[in-house]
Amino acid sequence: MTDRDFLAMEDWSPEEIGALLDLAARVKRGEVSGGLEKKVLAMVFMDPSLRTRSSFETGMFLHGGHAAVLEPGKGSWALETEEGAVMDGTAVEHIAEAARVLARYADALAVRAFPRGTDWAQEREDRVVRDFARYADKPVINLESSRRHPCQGLADAMTLREKLGETRGKRFVLSWAWHPKPLPTAVPASAAIAAAMLGMDIVIARPEGYDLDPDDTALIRQIARQNGGMFQLSGDCDDALVGADAVYVKSWGSLEHFGRPDDEAELRRGLRDWRLTVPRLRNTRGGKGVVMHCLPVRRNVEIDDAVLDGPNSAVVDEAENRLHAQRALLLELIGTRTTR
Amino acid sequence: MTDRDFLAMEDWSPEEIGALLDLAARVKRGEVSGGLEKKVLAMVFMDPSLRTRSSFETGMFLHGGHAAVLEPGKGSWALETEEGAVMDGTAVEHIAEAARVLARYADALAVRAFPRGTDWAQEREDRVVRDFARYADKPVINLESSRRHPCQGLADAMTLREKLGETRGKRFVLSWAWHPKPLPTAVPASAAIAAAMLGMDIVIARPEGYDLDPDDTALIRQIARQNGGMFQLSGDCDDALVGADAVYVKSWGSLEHFGRPDDEAELRRGLRDWRLTVPRLRNTRGGKGVVMHCLPVRRNVEIDDAVLDGPNSAVVDEAENRLHAQRALLLELIGTRTTR
Amino acid sequence: MTDRDFLAMEDWSPEEIGALLDLAARVKRGEVSGGLEKKVLAMVFMDPSLRTRSSFETGMFLHGGHAAVLEPGKGSWALETEEGAVMDGTAVEHIAEAARVLARYADALAVRAFPRGTDWAQEREDRVVRDFARYADKPVINLESSRRHPCQGLADAMTLREKLGETRGKRFVLSWAWHPKPLPTAVPASAAIAAAMLGMDIVIARPEGYDLDPDDTALIRQIARQNGGMFQLSGDCDDALVGADAVYVKSWGSLEHFGRPDDEAELRRGLRDWRLTVPRLRNTRGGKGVVMHCLPVRRNVEIDDAVLDGPNSAVVDEAENRLHAQRALLLELIGTRTTR
Repeated sequence: MTDRDFLAMEDWSPEEIGALLDLAARVKRGEVSGGLEKKVLAMVFMDPSLRTRSSFETGMFLHGGHAAVLEPGKGSWALETEEGAVMDGTAVEHIAEAARVLARYADALAVRAFPRGTDWAQEREDRVVRDFARYADKPVINLESSRRHPCQGLADAMTLREKLGETRGKRFVLSWAWHPKPLPTAVPASAAIAAAMLGMDIVIARPEGYDLDPDDTALIRQIARQNGGMFQLSGDCDDALVGADAVYVKSWGSLEHFGRPDDEAELRRGLRDWRLTVPRLRNTRGGKGVVMHCLPVRRNVEIDDAVLDGPNSAVVDEAENRLHAQRALLLELIGTRTTR
Repeated sequence: MTDRDFLAMEDWSPEEIGALLDLAARVKRGEVSGGLEKKVLAMVFMDPSLRTRSSFETGMFLHGGHAAVLEPGKGSWALETEEGAVMDGTAVEHIAEAARVLARYADALAVRAFPRGTDWAQEREDRVVRDFARYADKPVINLESSRRHPCQGLADAMTLREKLGETRGKRFVLSWAWHPKPLPTAVPASAAIAAAMLGMDIVIARPEGYDLDPDDTALIRQIARQNGGMFQLSGDCDDALVGADAVYVKSWGSLEHFGRPDDEAELRRGLRDWRLTVPRLRNTRGGKGVVMHCLPVRRNVEIDDAVLDGPNSAVVDEAENRLHAQRALLLELIGTRTTR
Repeated sequence: MTDRDFLAMEDWSPEEIGALLDLAARVKRGEVSGGLEKKVLAMVFMDPSLRTRSSFETGMFLHGGHAAVLEPGKGSWALETEEGAVMDGTAVEHIAEAARVLARYADALAVRAFPRGTDWAQEREDRVVRDFARYADKPVINLESSRRHPCQGLADAMTLREKLGETRGKRFVLSWAWHPKPLPTAVPASAAIAAAMLGMDIVIARPEGYDLDPDDTALIRQIARQNGGMFQLSGDCDDALVGADAVYVKSWGSLEHFGRPDDEAELRRGLRDWRLTVPRLRNTRGGKGVVMHCLPVRRNVEIDDAVLDGPNSAVVDEAENRLHAQRALLLELIGTRTTR
C-alpha cells in the first residue's frame, strides 16, 4: 500500500506515466480483472460532475471495489483551510479533520475543488487538494483543482497514443476557443503537459490576453524539451493548425481578469471566430488531425457539428478513456496484486 | 447484448410483456440469482425520485451489478436537445455527447425527464428519453417521461396478474382523483395500456376537461380491443366502479390547460369529491375490487385512510413489484445468461 | 431476521451493548468478514451527512452488502406524519407509505431527521424516526434524531473502552463549549448515556441555562447509578475537569430558548471561555485525560489546535470507530450468520 498521490501528471516521471498508460491499454482490452476487492474510494465533490463521478464509480465497481460519493452541500460546505484559524465563522469543519477521518474509512481519497474566488494568486495554490493530500495518509487523487485535471490529462495521453501510435515529434495544437463565459485553465494546462510528456511538439494558439499561468507555460515548455519536443506560442488559430497531428480545442478565461467576468467581456468580444470548423480542419496533417475536447463541448460555438460528428473527432473515445485510465490509476495506487 | 430500449410498454408485444412478467414472478419467488455481474446501469434523473431510484439500485445490486446515479444539477442542468443548435446560451452539454459517453461507461442507460414547459404539443414528443435512445448504442430505459412510465406499467401489470389471476375480461377502472395541483399523465396512460395489454375491459372515469391525450386514449382503446377487451369512458366516478375488479386511482392535470395551473384551478374547483372512499369501494365486484395507486398518494385527498389501510389496498405490493419487474427487465436487456 | 430497532442505546441492555462492542472490536481487528451479502440498507437523510453516510456505505460494502442513499429533496421533502391528515397541503407522501415501501426493498432502514421546528415539546417526541420504526417491519436505525444519536454513542463507548480499558468508576466529563450557533442535544445526551452504560462516573459541566432535557438528565443519572457510577452536575468547566479520565467536549443550544436563536444570543454572550485548552487539560487525571468530540469541531472555538493535534486527542479514532461499531450493529441486526 502506498501513500502516493496523483495531484498532477508532472509529479510522476514520464516512465511512470508510460507504464500507467500501458496498464490502461490492457485494462481497456479486458485483460485485467479484479484487484480492488474490499477497496473503497471516497470521492469528495466540492463542485458538480457527471463524467468524473460515473467513470470512477464504474471503474471501482468493475474491479470489485466501491466509490462512496460525497457532495458537501453542493458547494456550500465551507471547509476551513487556514492553519490556526479561530473557526467562529461559517466554516463548520477544518480540512484537517475531514481528510484524516475519510482516510480512516477509505483506501484512497479523490477531491474536486474548482477555483471560486477572485484572487488567482491564491487560487493557483490548489490549497484544498494539496491540504487533503497533506493531512490524509492515504493516496489522494485530484479530480480537478484550480490548476490541474490530471485524470483528464491521463485520458488525453492515452487517446493520443491510441490515435497516433508513436507520439514523439508529432504536432499537438492546443487551440483556444470562444465560449460565453470564462472557464478554468486546469484542463488546457493538463492536456499540454500530457502531450509534452509524450514527446510531442506543443503549440498553444490563443488570442492576446489569454496566456496560461506563466509558471504553467514555462513548465509545459520545459517538459516538452526534456522529452525531445518543441514548444511554440501562436496568436493565429489558422496558422497554428497547419500540419497538426492533434487539435485540442478548449476555452479558458483570461487570468488577467480572473474573477471579473464583466471586465473580460470586452476582451472576449470579437473572438467568436476562434472555433474549429471543417475548413480549418483541412489544414491539419493530411486533413486527418485528431480532434480532442474534454467535454462538455458547446456545439457550433467551440467546435462545429460537422467536425464533432465527422471522422476526425476523438471526443467520445477520449471520454471513454477516462474510465480505463482511471482504472489503471486505481490499480496502481491501491490495487491488491501486481497487474503489470 | 441488445440495443433494445424500454421506452413504452406498447413498443413490446403482449407476448414479450407476458414473458417478462413470468420472469418477474420467478424473480420475486427467489428463483433467479445473479446475471448482472460486472454490469452497470447509468441512471440519469432530471427530476427527483425515491422509489424508482432505490428499487433500481437495489435490483442491480441483488444480481451482482451496480447502478450509478446521476442527478444533473437537480433539474437545472440545461441539456441541449436541438440538432444544429449554436450553444451560446445556458445549455452546457448536448444530449448527443451525454448519451454517447454514458453508453461507453454503462451497459444500459435509464432516464427520467418530466414535462416542464408550457407547450404540450412539444412535451408530448418525449424528446429527452427518445434522444437518449437515439444517440446511445445501449438499451435505454424510460424512468418516466412526459408521456410514459413503463416501469410503473410493468409493476401494475404484475400486480394485476398476482391479485386477479386470469385478467382477461376483468374490469379495470382508471379513476381520476382530485389533487391540489395538476400532475402529469404518464402514469395513468401507462397503467391503462398495461391493463389493456392484459386483455382487461378498460374504463376511464374522469371529469369533463380531463381526457388523456387523444392519441393515448385512442391507443388504449386499440390495445384493449386487440387483446379482447372493451373500452369505455365515464364521467361518473360512482357508476364507473360498479363491478370493478381493479380500481386504479390517480390524479392528473387537464391537458387543455397544460402549463397554466391558475387557469385550471377554476375547472378543478368542485371536484374534491373525486376520491376513493369505503362506500364507493363497496360498489366494486363483491366489494373486493383491488385498489391500486403508483404512490406517493395524498391520503384522504385521493384515497381515504380506511381504504388505504384496508384489505383491498394493493398499493404497497404494487410498489414492491417495481423492484421485481425491473429486475426482470434488466435481466432481459443486459443479463449475462438465459434466465427464462 | 429481526425487526429490532436501534433508536436509542438505552433501548438495549448494557449486556447487549457490551456484546455489540465486543463484536465491533473483532470487526476492527479484521476478524469478521462477510455476513451482509445480498443485504440492502436504505438510508434516508432528511439532513446532510458526511461521516454517517460514508461510514455506513463503507461498512455495508465491506461485508458484501449495499447502502442505497436517499436524500429527500435536501430537507424540503414534506413528509406527512399526522395520522388521519387530509393531505391537501405541501406534503406529498405520508410516512406510512414511505416506510412500508422501503421496508419491501431493503433489509433495514436508517433515518436521519434533525429537529427543525420551534417547539421542543413536539421535537422531543422524535416522531420521524419513531414512525419509521412503527410502520416498517424491518429494523430501523436512528442516524440522529432530535433526541438521540445512538450510532455516535456506540462509537463513543467503543473509544472509551479502547482508551481506558476498564471503564467502571472512571470519570467522564461532558463539557459544554461555546459555538456561534445553538446545536442539537442529541449527541451530548447520547454520549453521556453511553458512558453511563459503561459504569463511568458522569459529570456534566455546563453554564446556567444549558441543561439537557430534564428527562434526559434524569435518565443519565439513573443509568449511571444502575451501572455503579455516580452522577454530578457542574457549573464550572475548570473544576469539572479535575481528575477526568475522559473529556467529551460538545456545544449545544439552550432548550429554554429552543428555536429562538436571537433570544439565546444574550445568554451565550460571555461564554466563549468555555473551550478546551492545554492548561485546562493539565487538570485531567495525570494530564492524560482522553479528549473526545463527535466532529465536526470548530478549532480554537470549541477545542484549541494544540489539544486537537496533541497526544490526548482521540477524535479521529472516535470517528473511525463509527465505521466499526456500525459494522457490528449491521451484522447483529441483519447479518446472515452468527458472528459472535
